[in-house]
Amino acid sequence: MKPEEIDRTDPEGTIAAAVARVSNWGRWGADDVLGTMNFLTDQKRRDAAVLIRTGQSISLSQPFDMDGPQNGWRRRTNPVHTMLDTGTDAVAGVQGFPHGLGGADDVIAMPLQCSTQWDGLGHIFDHGKTWNGRPADQVVTCLGDNTTGIETVADIVCGRGVLLDVGRALGTDGELPDGFAITEEHLERTIEAQGPTSTVGTGDIVVVRTGQLSRARRGLTAGDGWGAYAGGSAPGLSFSTVDWLHRVEIAAIATDTWGFEVRPNEFDHAFQPLHQVAIPHLGLFIGELWDADTLAAACAEDGRYDFFLTASPIRVTGAVGAPVNPIAVR
Amino acid sequence: MKPEEIDRTDPEGTIAAAVARVSNWGRWGADDVLGTMNFLTDQKRRDAAVLIRTGQSISLSQPFDMDGPQNGWRRRTNPVHTMLDTGTDAVAGVQGFPHGLGGADDVIAMPLQCSTQWDGLGHIFDHGKTWNGRPADQVVTCLGDNTTGIETVADIVCGRGVLLDVGRALGTDGELPDGFAITEEHLERTIEAQGPTSTVGTGDIVVVRTGQLSRARRGLTAGDGWGAYAGGSAPGLSFSTVDWLHRVEIAAIATDTWGFEVRPNEFDHAFQPLHQVAIPHLGLFIGELWDADTLAAACAEDGRYDFFLTASPIRVTGAVGAPVNPIAVR
Amino acid sequence: MKPEEIDRTDPEGTIAAAVARVSNWGRWGADDVLGTMNFLTDQKRRDAAVLIRTGQSISLSQPFDMDGPQNGWRRRTNPVHTMLDTGTDAVAGVQGFPHGLGGADDVIAMPLQCSTQWDGLGHIFDHGKTWNGRPADQVVTCLGDNTTGIETVADIVCGRGVLLDVGRALGTDGELPDGFAITEEHLERTIEAQGPTSTVGTGDIVVVRTGQLSRARRGLTAGDGWGAYAGGSAPGLSFSTVDWLHRVEIAAIATDTWGFEVRPNEFDHAFQPLHQVAIPHLGLFIGELWDADTLAAACAEDGRYDFFLTASPIRVTGAVGAPVNPIAVR
Amino acid sequence: MKPEEIDRTDPEGTIAAAVARVSNWGRWGADDVLGTMNFLTDQKRRDAAVLIRTGQSISLSQPFDMDGPQNGWRRRTNPVHTMLDTGTDAVAGVQGFPHGLGGADDVIAMPLQCSTQWDGLGHIFDHGKTWNGRPADQVVTCLGDNTTGIETVADIVCGRGVLLDVGRALGTDGELPDGFAITEEHLERTIEAQGPTSTVGTGDIVVVRTGQLSRARRGLTAGDGWGAYAGGSAPGLSFSTVDWLHRVEIAAIATDTWGFEVRPNEFDHAFQPLHQVAIPHLGLFIGELWDADTLAAACAEDGRYDFFLTASPIRVTGAVGAPVNPIAVR
Repeated sequence: MKPEEIDRTDPEGTIAAAVARVSNWGRWGADDVLGTMNFLTDQKRRDAAVLIRTGQSISLSQPFDMDGPQNGWRRRTNPVHTMLDTGTDAVAGVQGFPHGLGGADDVIAMPLQCSTQWDGLGHIFDHGKTWNGRPADQVVTCLGDNTTGIETVADIVCGRGVLLDVGRALGTDGELPDGFAITEEHLERTIEAQGPTSTVGTGDIVVVRTGQLSRARRGLTAGDGWGAYAGGSAPGLSFSTVDWLHRVEIAAIATDTWGFEVRPNEFDHAFQPLHQVAIPHLGLFIGELWDADTLAAACAEDGRYDFFLTASPIRVTGAVGAPVNPIAVR
Repeated sequence: MKPEEIDRTDPEGTIAAAVARVSNWGRWGADDVLGTMNFLTDQKRRDAAVLIRTGQSISLSQPFDMDGPQNGWRRRTNPVHTMLDTGTDAVAGVQGFPHGLGGADDVIAMPLQCSTQWDGLGHIFDHGKTWNGRPADQVVTCLGDNTTGIETVADIVCGRGVLLDVGRALGTDGELPDGFAITEEHLERTIEAQGPTSTVGTGDIVVVRTGQLSRARRGLTAGDGWGAYAGGSAPGLSFSTVDWLHRVEIAAIATDTWGFEVRPNEFDHAFQPLHQVAIPHLGLFIGELWDADTLAAACAEDGRYDFFLTASPIRVTGAVGAPVNPIAVR
Repeated sequence: MKPEEIDRTDPEGTIAAAVARVSNWGRWGADDVLGTMNFLTDQKRRDAAVLIRTGQSISLSQPFDMDGPQNGWRRRTNPVHTMLDTGTDAVAGVQGFPHGLGGADDVIAMPLQCSTQWDGLGHIFDHGKTWNGRPADQVVTCLGDNTTGIETVADIVCGRGVLLDVGRALGTDGELPDGFAITEEHLERTIEAQGPTSTVGTGDIVVVRTGQLSRARRGLTAGDGWGAYAGGSAPGLSFSTVDWLHRVEIAAIATDTWGFEVRPNEFDHAFQPLHQVAIPHLGLFIGELWDADTLAAACAEDGRYDFFLTASPIRVTGAVGAPVNPIAVR
Repeated sequence: MKPEEIDRTDPEGTIAAAVARVSNWGRWGADDVLGTMNFLTDQKRRDAAVLIRTGQSISLSQPFDMDGPQNGWRRRTNPVHTMLDTGTDAVAGVQGFPHGLGGADDVIAMPLQCSTQWDGLGHIFDHGKTWNGRPADQVVTCLGDNTTGIETVADIVCGRGVLLDVGRALGTDGELPDGFAITEEHLERTIEAQGPTSTVGTGDIVVVRTGQLSRARRGLTAGDGWGAYAGGSAPGLSFSTVDWLHRVEIAAIATDTWGFEVRPNEFDHAFQPLHQVAIPHLGLFIGELWDADTLAAACAEDGRYDFFLTASPIRVTGAVGAPVNPIAVR
């Protein structure tokens, strides 16, 4: 669809129409739990190996700590990391180990969506249905997601990554402003600007850099804190990209923002409408709070925008999202 | 050293002598925070790319859930995964989202050492010193490891992996018994049995399979629970491998056991003596609670024991250990 | 009802019949959130003041720590208590406070039902209904109990307490065996044995001692661990006491066991059937994992079995249960 | 001391001089773990029983939830309360219980100092020493406080409470401004204004109301959030009250503020200087984040400012602070 075709006053109808166009329900059988990860085959992974040229590896993960962007909204807090043993205890001689041994252990408590993460297929529902048409109340209970927990893709999120640095291609000083809706046309212009290594196709994992994280970091450095980086206005994908997301057959897409899609969104009254199609109907894996800045600098320097990407989530059984340390190898 | 040279009655003296032979303190400068990860260069990573042949990817992670092996010893519990929102809430209509949207979020509380993980360089001390000779009480406090936190290697743990399936090469039905001390000779025999793809050298990440996890899984299936898999007797590396670990210049080593080294160990009264040399003096990264069974079956089938391995930990600032989902691509 | 009237083969019918006899729905109006706490008036509290004779105060709380009885069943773990700052950090000089100040802070993660606690009115449902007939799916969601959260009684659980030491009155060496179903007759015999200070009436908080905790403690001392103290067989109230619980108009009742009612229970296939009537239909507050041993010794010594009891739960908004440190003052 | 005797430029010297005047070290023997709780005897508790006149009970606890005042400073977060089971799960039929039973359980993760709490004697150190002169690094380690953990007073914090409503007596509209240092003279004027029920003596638990919480609540209602209620400027006790705190022999003191003492404090560069004397040297128990507003209204109405107070902390083994639901009965 074109952005101008979005009816601001009718999110429910517009979403339903999009679903009718792009649904992948049943595409991989009634029992499917992988969604678009089906596009990411061994063959794709093998083909991506040639993208490793210099051996440089770059993490796309933000830190997990108390200085992160979360502010408690939706009970999402920053990780609380505490110690079970420390070096100070060891030196004080209170640990009770023999022959000079000392040790430290630690504990973490955190929302699985607090920092760099994948949304699992059980993260979003449309009218009570999860991916592939399953009833949400039979799939995602207090025990977690019993069908499409993140563990189903723990082995496979690894293949060709492509950076679409829309911030650099179309923004000012490498950044898109908050509220900037990235359309299919913007994506195509970015691909064109970046050159042939940016072509997006079946099974790829696309990383979209908007530049919002760079801006948030400047705010931090200036002492202004994170502001609304976690949960507020942001550049992001237009609802209208739903057809593109379906057509290009990518395995997954990630952004350097909290919420992947543009905020405020393109309806008068809606909440994360693109999620509502992308996750339960496309079966698309969405990465959020990724840090693409170092990778973007490297790509800009040598003009190569594709890379070998490993981004398999921590294997939390039944999780509807999970932390990941995505590693790009170039 | 040879196993028979271990003086069972003198762990402290034996450890000190080993340290004198193998210490890497200062080897990479006074400010070093990477230890043996210095061996893992871009060049090594580039060379490893050719090991991707079929594109098959295999996770070496155990699950993170309440059914795991932890029993509270040293306050190590299994992960507690709870939900902030569920599908049942969505279907009950209590979430308050517009236009049919529903969502689920989740939270985890867990020791960072509870399942598949890397020990960081701040995990073990020798006589109050951490890696490179730093005072433990200035490095690892209640705020975490301020110098060698796991984040220092978040970008780089990616390169050539080599499986040494000692269980299959030397054990009965693919498993070593608890208390089996794997010596340098055992490692060399395994390499010889497996063939030239198993050669271990500078910058490699070695995965040792003892078979204990296979055994524990049989116990689980039989309804016997985990037994002492987390914290009890186990096959593992002999203290005497300390010279081999130093000489071969590997970047890291991981096992399918809780504690990497043999338990009970080879001294009358000692606790994790090999850790005491390997982490603070070699600066060696040790992986524990890895699951090498699927990988081992694949390697045995085609006789290729090396692979491209990405095993970068979750980027928890200041952590002395961190969960990881290691992905072997073959 | 009499114990012999329980139809072992028909829990659902027996429960329904009991509900028909004893339901308090509507008794205190459609908006009631207090249930049997309505019986505990200022007047009752004032009358109880005279029970304070010597001023001796006794806690009825078990400890909250990693050495507790929980074993992970139903994801109930023991509390994990970690430190944010320590004395070892202070002495190591790493805290950064001026003029010789040092400090320690701590954190806890725990199920609200892990140790001495009150069940709130949102803890148990009968056929989808909570206390007073409300739909469970509109009251207790992932956000907690929005109507009958434990905070509704945070001000008021304070009044006359009565110890019924059934273990001492009817057991062997002060203990009832596991599986012992305490009937109305047993309660009446205990009251008779203990004398007039044990009379139970409107607004009282009854503490039943079975002696199981004493037995569990002996097991701990002997090195046998907690066994099945949390979740296994236990002495406890017979389902048939449901009429007594209704008739005597107590405000609350607590036991020294995990589950208040007898286990195994008195049906062929049932789970906590007395809960199913007592909480959603009587609106009765049930305390579990209380420690009545010290109090029992004091009562036995001077023959006074009633006391002033303060047992207001920690004010966790929306909690379906909450820790409490009950204090008996005699 | 008089407030004007505070040397703003010399916190360390002023603190040391105060310690020399008021230290209670050794007063109750070398093994003492109770500090000023020694003043709270059975006799005091018995005498306090007569203060129960109407039987009205009032909680002095603030809520424990995500809407609390904590902002992450010193890693103090608001409580995170999540559900293990819900009514929505029960109604969806996914719980697997028989005969119509449904249930809900919950979990909490929180700093022990996040809401209404007692500081334990292991909470603050002076030059590496805890209460009674013990070395802080031998007492408060990563395992908690092994000597003066809050459990030592779990049975006994119950007796005569006295409200000193300084806000109402000396403030404007019942509130003292932030930075207002409450001196001994202010306390005496408040006692005089309130009348003879306010006399403070041995073994009493004093509750000081500054009115800051009332102000913070107005801010919340106005949509301004908590501001700096947790950790910022506040009315509170002047350092100069240290002699009064010693002389009157109270068992404990609590305030409606985050930090008990005035902030900013009365030195040019200091952090919580009154804590540094009161906790490790007086052995005084300090309550923080108490809510005295309802109680204050009741006291103002009938002119009775003393009451029976039960305020025993949750029995967390080794805790340096613990949540409490203080109940005043009048």
